[in-house]
Amino acid sequence: MTELKNDTFLRALLKQPVDYTPIWMMRQAGRYLPEYRATRARAGSFMGLCTSPDYATEVTLQPLDRFPLDAAILFSDILTVPDAMGLGLYFAEGEGPKFERPLRDEAAIKALAVPALDSLRYVFDAVSSIRRALNGRVPLIGFSGSPFTLACYMIEGGGSADFRHVKAMLYSRPELMHHILDVNAQTVTDYLNAQIDAGAQAVQIFDTWGGALTHAAYREFSLAYMQKIVAGLKREADGRRVPVIVFTKGGGQWLEDIAAIGADCVGLDWTTDIGLARARVGDQVALQGNLDPNALFAEPAAIEREVARILAAYGAGSGHVFNLGHGISQFVDPAHAGVLVEAVHRLSRPYHMA
Amino acid sequence: MTELKNDTFLRALLKQPVDYTPIWMMRQAGRYLPEYRATRARAGSFMGLCTSPDYATEVTLQPLDRFPLDAAILFSDILTVPDAMGLGLYFAEGEGPKFERPLRDEAAIKALAVPALDSLRYVFDAVSSIRRALNGRVPLIGFSGSPFTLACYMIEGGGSADFRHVKAMLYSRPELMHHILDVNAQTVTDYLNAQIDAGAQAVQIFDTWGGALTHAAYREFSLAYMQKIVAGLKREADGRRVPVIVFTKGGGQWLEDIAAIGADCVGLDWTTDIGLARARVGDQVALQGNLDPNALFAEPAAIEREVARILAAYGAGSGHVFNLGHGISQFVDPAHAGVLVEAVHRLSRPYHMA
Repeated sequence: MTELKNDTFLRALLKQPVDYTPIWMMRQAGRYLPEYRATRARAGSFMGLCTSPDYATEVTLQPLDRFPLDAAILFSDILTVPDAMGLGLYFAEGEGPKFERPLRDEAAIKALAVPALDSLRYVFDAVSSIRRALNGRVPLIGFSGSPFTLACYMIEGGGSADFRHVKAMLYSRPELMHHILDVNAQTVTDYLNAQIDAGAQAVQIFDTWGGALTHAAYREFSLAYMQKIVAGLKREADGRRVPVIVFTKGGGQWLEDIAAIGADCVGLDWTTDIGLARARVGDQVALQGNLDPNALFAEPAAIEREVARILAAYGAGSGHVFNLGHGISQFVDPAHAGVLVEAVHRLSRPYHMA
Repeated sequence: MTELKNDTFLRALLKQPVDYTPIWMMRQAGRYLPEYRATRARAGSFMGLCTSPDYATEVTLQPLDRFPLDAAILFSDILTVPDAMGLGLYFAEGEGPKFERPLRDEAAIKALAVPALDSLRYVFDAVSSIRRALNGRVPLIGFSGSPFTLACYMIEGGGSADFRHVKAMLYSRPELMHHILDVNAQTVTDYLNAQIDAGAQAVQIFDTWGGALTHAAYREFSLAYMQKIVAGLKREADGRRVPVIVFTKGGGQWLEDIAAIGADCVGLDWTTDIGLARARVGDQVALQGNLDPNALFAEPAAIEREVARILAAYGAGSGHVFNLGHGISQFVDPAHAGVLVEAVHRLSRPYHMA
């Protein structure tokens, strides 16, 4: 494998000394970039981008050609996994992703099984292709949705404002929910390990909807299954540690417990003060975050002020990967993303002087 | 004034001994009740209900005729306040409330002023009318949106998924945001005091969107203004304390600070463990909450289990007002709300034995 030219991101995840705080942005390859919209138009559809290793490689690299980001992230979607399980992913115009066969009855749930990984071959091919195209520029992050977040889409059959079917099942028939989560956890473990085999140098588990649960239910139905996955992941490739990041949006109240499941880094949304978070988790994990993604709608000077505030809150030393607290909005001016990346690199250097 | 026949709710808010844990439900007078839908059809519109003291009284009392709830809450809407400020509230079919003249330019913001309370006379008339109709059955709660939550609607011009304009203003032009919040805080103080004068026996400040802020911005742009309001409220009427409840949805990380602003009670959404919350706030305030509103989609036995879990988490003694962690969904079966109220009353008695 080609030598990594910029390993700042991987070093920060392991709390090793760095010269500056590395940054990447959730959804950095996305609709806010005109070049992404152009490629997407050529591909014809969102899934057309995901299923073509060439297109996936092209859009993954687009933000890196604009901004000096410290990591690339595989262009894909968390719903590739339930699609491989046979739920029938489709995109209804203007409505977001949906499933033809949501899990609503006991027979369908009991029939759910870990899919053959071959049906996800296009993802692993994309990882290999991106890795080659990166040629050691920055590390490549692989990812998956968390078992609970996947289950939300699988049960509701699409996005949901209230998770009505999910909650009804979770409270009334917890054993059915646990069966789905068991299958999901095993599948995600295999899926992430195959991404690591294909060349992913770090992996992130996105728990987008764990924050919709109660304190007790989060532990039972989301965190426990992420812990299973972390325990089953390959943690080394090419003689180098493959760090794992777990990110529960809305999980700020539960940081201590999230930090204890064995991941290298915990992602924060923007509602948590990163200085207080650092004090709460101690040396157990690195932290990723936590700019309000909608601060990017503000003027450049205001973006810089927020960056300075977060860097000061984290304080001196390694263990911080700068990021947004959620994906970048399609309506953000790309120039503002550039202001952010430059500000993080410039303003963080004093915090890393020996 | 007529003597109060059931003051369990008011006593629990002040941590005085009670025989059982009182309960009311946010949005208890609402679309899940067929009798509400019938009255609303007669009134012709949602604002037709709010602006008619007779209709408002009728729907306020409907849930009390079904369930032995321990408090009534004024039927109204938080957007009556910005409407009185001249922003032009209207309801677009299938889109929720909107404003004709959202606050987007500096001139409009600087022209914003505390409205004459006379324009909200219909609200105070509804309070008096409901209070007469209750005839001492249970206490009546008045309410308002928080200054920040009102500002969200006033700036966005309606509901928003990302608060793009709010965030742009807050980060780029904080002084403009502070002007809006100052006007809102003064208006809400006057508005709640007028409700108390008209007969409200407790008041709640709904901070629906404070949880969308960062740790720092929440304190500066939401909590500080709720503190101003609390400091300016009449706290006694008819020789009895008028308790104040503050509720920030998504505020679980900030409980200690919320508990310190001088309110009698802090509302919890469902993501916070109420036992841990009690330990964090100590004797400073009572707590209100915190059933997952979507647990009401589960079967009755599951609803009872969740009630039992929350009561056990809070533990023995007064200071807990049972509620949902957010408004009841229009899709909930009213019988399930009945199961909830009965279970809270029955299962809580052992926790209040001397």
